[in-house]
Amino acid sequence: MIPAKVKIVEVGPRDGLQNEKEFVSTETKIELVDRLADAGLQKVEATSFVSPKWVPQMADGAAVMAGIARREGTIYSVLTPNMRGFEGALEARADEVVIFGAASEAFSQKNINCSIAESIARFEPVAKAAKDAGVRLRASISCALGCPYQGEVPVASVVDVVERMAALGCDEIDIADTIGVGTAKRTREVLAAASKVFPRERLSGHFHDTYGQAVANIYAALLEGIEIFHASVAGLGGCPYAKGATGNVATEDVVYLMNGLGIETGVDLGKLIEIGDFISRAIGKPSASRAGKALLAKQRDGVGACV
Amino acid sequence: MIPAKVKIVEVGPRDGLQNEKEFVSTETKIELVDRLADAGLQKVEATSFVSPKWVPQMADGAAVMAGIARREGTIYSVLTPNMRGFEGALEARADEVVIFGAASEAFSQKNINCSIAESIARFEPVAKAAKDAGVRLRASISCALGCPYQGEVPVASVVDVVERMAALGCDEIDIADTIGVGTAKRTREVLAAASKVFPRERLSGHFHDTYGQAVANIYAALLEGIEIFHASVAGLGGCPYAKGATGNVATEDVVYLMNGLGIETGVDLGKLIEIGDFISRAIGKPSASRAGKALLAKQRDGVGACV
Repeated sequence: MIPAKVKIVEVGPRDGLQNEKEFVSTETKIELVDRLADAGLQKVEATSFVSPKWVPQMADGAAVMAGIARREGTIYSVLTPNMRGFEGALEARADEVVIFGAASEAFSQKNINCSIAESIARFEPVAKAAKDAGVRLRASISCALGCPYQGEVPVASVVDVVERMAALGCDEIDIADTIGVGTAKRTREVLAAASKVFPRERLSGHFHDTYGQAVANIYAALLEGIEIFHASVAGLGGCPYAKGATGNVATEDVVYLMNGLGIETGVDLGKLIEIGDFISRAIGKPSASRAGKALLAKQRDGVGACV
Repeated sequence: MIPAKVKIVEVGPRDGLQNEKEFVSTETKIELVDRLADAGLQKVEATSFVSPKWVPQMADGAAVMAGIARREGTIYSVLTPNMRGFEGALEARADEVVIFGAASEAFSQKNINCSIAESIARFEPVAKAAKDAGVRLRASISCALGCPYQGEVPVASVVDVVERMAALGCDEIDIADTIGVGTAKRTREVLAAASKVFPRERLSGHFHDTYGQAVANIYAALLEGIEIFHASVAGLGGCPYAKGATGNVATEDVVYLMNGLGIETGVDLGKLIEIGDFISRAIGKPSASRAGKALLAKQRDGVGACV
């Protein structure tokens, strides 16, 4: 049942960096994206085309896209909240645009002041334009395993959003545990249900490690046959609402898991460790990757981890 | 297959604190053990009876055991490397003594300068004395999923050590990934093999989170029917050989997992979070528990984790 091969989508440059308070230079972002592609990540979420008023860190999206060295076969995706964003993405020659919606009604109301259904309907023009332009369309469904406002999110709500996103023509749909509250059981239930209404091989798991569950949830998702996983190098991401809490699962930890399971990723873990070190130094924060820290210590000290 | 109920063995006071450089006061240790028992942990590894030359942090083992308020039904276990340790444990009225051995020949040679078989044979007097005194006997098998010196540890080596420990009359045997290198596949293979030579319900999983795999390995072990797990509140433990690397899996993260899976632990997660905060402040280090940090932030800030 466990796949022989998975695709890891690197979201560090966008989801990871977007909440950094200090502006990360365009040069650093370009180097980050290029090195990730070089390390074998088949898809890199490179930036957002979103109003700089909302996300100042992503204000240089066009410059990042213009500066990167396009690697043959790598998909560079960007977040596009609206038609203006889509036009920017098209001009920047993004390979894939990402639209989004929450599976939680309370979250949708609280954050964008409209229902889930309305929020998704607003993406219709973007979806249509992407299809017309022959650009890949991906949808990210947030709060799929729990919501900070309503708590429990019914599996049926996730399935409903998957169906709405599928109807827009999405090529790939992300089931995202944005707040990291999910555990293995719920992960399997939600993914099994989503697989019934959308091709399993085009569903991805996006897990945050806020409660320490992300790697276990990825293993649980593998047992459900999921083949695409999101991760963020050095665990970039953090959480603006909970100091000290962890954000995205670290790519290093995910690749370490896959290597241990004998699952092919195409990613060079050695290069990845170096990239995690590079970006952690660049933003002046310790890496949140456990495998990354342990492997760096092993290189440095010889013996390896603790005994 | 997954058990309805598990026992969590809290190892923070011993395995967690033993490598702390600053001496943790006896009073703090006693409070830690008592609060853990009060939070519902059915077994607490309270201290070691080991030469203070080797482990100065555990020099107050007798005082800790004398000072704790024995809770009805809680098993207080102590590490006993030899007969002198055993006598101390007996005098201190320990409910369980713990002997140990590595599954890695290279580790055994390097650390205690003898073969695995010899190292286990040395425990014969302790095992016999424990049986004679009616004290529970537990064995901990280190390097069961990998070794810092030889790397790969054959499954057959683990099985061999399990058999030797079983022959000594052990009531419970711990399969310990001391250096945290194991992933879910190896975890399942080793536990499945060990279950063939020792009753599954008396095997426990002891995982370190050095490479971020511990919670996933626990989930994998549950799928193999394992019912006993070790954990350390606040992830106490660290690693003396790899700065920044993580040690024991945090009890909070494990209880959070079990709650999500609907598996009964008897542990009050709210109390546990408070204990993690207490001991982290006492030793002046941030908690390594992701669930602990997230839940504390949620209590403090209201909304909860990041969105």
